[in-house]
Amino acid sequence: MSQNQEFTKALTRYAAAIDAEIKDELAIKLDEFMRGAISYQFGWVDEDFKEVVGGNSGKKLRPVMYLLAYQACHPMGFDAPLAPALPAAACLEMIHNYSLIHDDIEDDDIERRGRPTIWALWGKPKAINVGDCLHVLAFRRLYRAANKGLTQERTLRIAESISDMSVKLALGQHKDMSFEDTLEVTPEMYIDMIGGKTAAIFSCALECAAISGLPEPLDESVVHNLATFGLKIGLAFQIRDDILGIWGLSSETGKPSGSDIRRRKKSLPVIYALTHATGSDHEQLLEIYHRTNPVNPSEEQFIMDAFERCGAKDFSQNQADKLRAEAETALSEAMPDSIEKNPPLKQLHDLCAFLVERSF
Amino acid sequence: MSQNQEFTKALTRYAAAIDAEIKDELAIKLDEFMRGAISYQFGWVDEDFKEVVGGNSGKKLRPVMYLLAYQACHPMGFDAPLAPALPAAACLEMIHNYSLIHDDIEDDDIERRGRPTIWALWGKPKAINVGDCLHVLAFRRLYRAANKGLTQERTLRIAESISDMSVKLALGQHKDMSFEDTLEVTPEMYIDMIGGKTAAIFSCALECAAISGLPEPLDESVVHNLATFGLKIGLAFQIRDDILGIWGLSSETGKPSGSDIRRRKKSLPVIYALTHATGSDHEQLLEIYHRTNPVNPSEEQFIMDAFERCGAKDFSQNQADKLRAEAETALSEAMPDSIEKNPPLKQLHDLCAFLVERSF
Repeated sequence: MSQNQEFTKALTRYAAAIDAEIKDELAIKLDEFMRGAISYQFGWVDEDFKEVVGGNSGKKLRPVMYLLAYQACHPMGFDAPLAPALPAAACLEMIHNYSLIHDDIEDDDIERRGRPTIWALWGKPKAINVGDCLHVLAFRRLYRAANKGLTQERTLRIAESISDMSVKLALGQHKDMSFEDTLEVTPEMYIDMIGGKTAAIFSCALECAAISGLPEPLDESVVHNLATFGLKIGLAFQIRDDILGIWGLSSETGKPSGSDIRRRKKSLPVIYALTHATGSDHEQLLEIYHRTNPVNPSEEQFIMDAFERCGAKDFSQNQADKLRAEAETALSEAMPDSIEKNPPLKQLHDLCAFLVERSF
Repeated sequence: MSQNQEFTKALTRYAAAIDAEIKDELAIKLDEFMRGAISYQFGWVDEDFKEVVGGNSGKKLRPVMYLLAYQACHPMGFDAPLAPALPAAACLEMIHNYSLIHDDIEDDDIERRGRPTIWALWGKPKAINVGDCLHVLAFRRLYRAANKGLTQERTLRIAESISDMSVKLALGQHKDMSFEDTLEVTPEMYIDMIGGKTAAIFSCALECAAISGLPEPLDESVVHNLATFGLKIGLAFQIRDDILGIWGLSSETGKPSGSDIRRRKKSLPVIYALTHATGSDHEQLLEIYHRTNPVNPSEEQFIMDAFERCGAKDFSQNQADKLRAEAETALSEAMPDSIEKNPPLKQLHDLCAFLVERSF
């Protein structure tokens, strides 16, 4: 099977169960608008709240990684019951989507997964409120784990971990917004910031997987190492995303998409280049990233070339590779047995390898 | 002691302990801005994050009611330890303030407790994010109750109750915003809507007090009756607030009389009058509440008079009285012993009486 087919297989394994768990939460006494708007965010309905078949509900990467790691930690492997773990899986996906709804408002983004964002359809006041509702529904769902086979102690421990993570998301988003106002951002500051975005959710998902799946007594070193694995893979994944946002090939043109350049997104290669380019490259880059009018196609090509000249692409890929190696170390410390003996662990490992190696 | 002195005494009993509990939560690894902005919301610092002595941090009504009811339920009364109850008390006050931060953004309100609102100082994107952070810090703090003497089972039960309540706040705020777009709101719809605002927090506070304070095994009928008591008192309190917003005297409210008329706030007397006034009163009221230009002083007087003529003031006071009587019934069913034998219950009762009788 190709790497991409393996990836799709891992993602589809739990998709229906995760959707069902979230839909079950939305079946509580919400009003039509609130249930509709949240269902729209998950790609299940259109803006008139009519059901959409085969809509884009996102890859559900976070709950999939959580569930794979849960079964990898569980003595029963792929035969481990999903019921005790689904509330936390749904919670992670709901927290991710709540943060997208609010980030889209804060960043004025009008499109997400090829459709208008919630605020673009219903205005910012109502969209803030939809995000708030989804944020707390995520926790509400999580508490059910204690009725589904997880101990109260572990349920509370997971609630603490996810609430810590959600605090980190707010701090990360604040840093991200602050970075838009300045060009004085170092690569270290940037990597610290993305540690409060995707990587924070990945780390939390892996930590919670250990807390959910490991036998008693809980081996704290495994919990710690899996959290580290999630953090490092999340950082590497984000940096790979940054590289693809500039040099990834557009499926339509077959040329580098450069989409992050046109958006003037302050991703890692940009931040590196703004502090490491020299001479006229440096001057021109500063000029382009300071102003607000559009980047034209010849400037786009210049930027890509200047980034390569100052080593921004290599630096970024090296950072991703280094983080990936650190992730591998943490994973082998967490689960010293061969990954061949643990099928969910093997699938988790392959999924993560794909995330940091992918070229699209 | 006068009613007002009794009120102040009840509010000050726990104020320092509640503040300390919230400050302890903010001592986690927040950045300077996040800690500063949240501390600003609580009145502890100014907009430069310099400490303010004697700032207005709000009345802390919700956690005070919770703590009084907790001690009223506890066999040790006023000698019951506060430690197991303070995390939930802090959580309730934090949820209340998170909802104020977001409501102020959604309603475009630029002032709160005599100072600029958070969004008015730092912009809406950052303010949304501050509210999000406070929302999840509230839950994070709550989980500590399990380390402070409350059982894990009760801690989870309270977490469920508060998450249910926070969902209700989002639904109530959505209804409130939707009502601004229409004049077709009945008193029943209005009372249903305020059941998702202050009254939802009051009801939850009283329910959580029973869950925190009652001896084992938990008497579910007391939990239920105290929740009902909180809901009815919350509704009566809000309606009394509506009446004072129109007919309250400026020297006592600290705001000009008729302030809700000038803001065209759709409070209960307005909603009643728009559906029950007749003839030219009805036509004029519809005209004034449909348009957007300012209400002038002679119109203001006309509106107050028209409201009284159609019975809007009496109707509203009767609703408040009826709800208060229902609250009293629920309280005496919850705690059938004489309130004279239970000092915290007596103080809770007097505080609630003040809330619905007050003239400022």
